[in-house]
Amino acid sequence: MDIGVAFGRAVKLRRTELDLSQEELADAAGLARSFVSGIERGVSSASVQSVWKLSVALDCLPSDLWLSAERVYRDAKKR
Amino acid sequence: MDIGVAFGRAVKLRRTELDLSQEELADAAGLARSFVSGIERGVSSASVQSVWKLSVALDCLPSDLWLSAERVYRDAKKR
Repeated sequence: MDIGVAFGRAVKLRRTELDLSQEELADAAGLARSFVSGIERGVSSASVQSVWKLSVALDCLPSDLWLSAERVYRDAKKR
Repeated sequence: MDIGVAFGRAVKLRRTELDLSQEELADAAGLARSFVSGIERGVSSASVQSVWKLSVALDCLPSDLWLSAERVYRDAKKR
C-alpha cells in the first residue's frame, strides 16, 4: 500500500466517524470536493497546509491523522 | 506563525538532532536539497509522500514530525 492511500483512508475514517459527507468536509476545510475525494483515494497528495486545514475541519490534529495513517499502513503490510 | 513554517522548524530540529546537513537529509530522502531547504524555511510545502520520505530519512514517523510542529506552532501562538 502506498502511504498516500493509507493517509487517505485515515482521512475517510475520521470523516465517517464524524458522520460528514465529502462535500461537508471540503466546505469546512475550504478545499474543493474533488481534491478531498482525490486525497481519500490516494490519487491527490495533500500539502502540509491542506493537511492542517483537513485536521481543523475534522476537529483533530495532523498528528492524529498521521497516527491513524501509520496504523493503516502497518496493518496493510502485515497482510 | 504559518503552519508550514512550524513544520519546517520541526524538520530542522530533528535533522540537527541527528547532526545531518541539509544535503545529507536530501540525499537520504531522495529529494532535492533546494526543496528540503524550502520546506525547512516554510516556503515549500511537503506532500504526504515527501513527509513520508523525510520521516524515513530522519528515522522517525510523520506523526513525530507533526507532534513537534504542533508544539512549535502552539508555543509561537502563546508569545
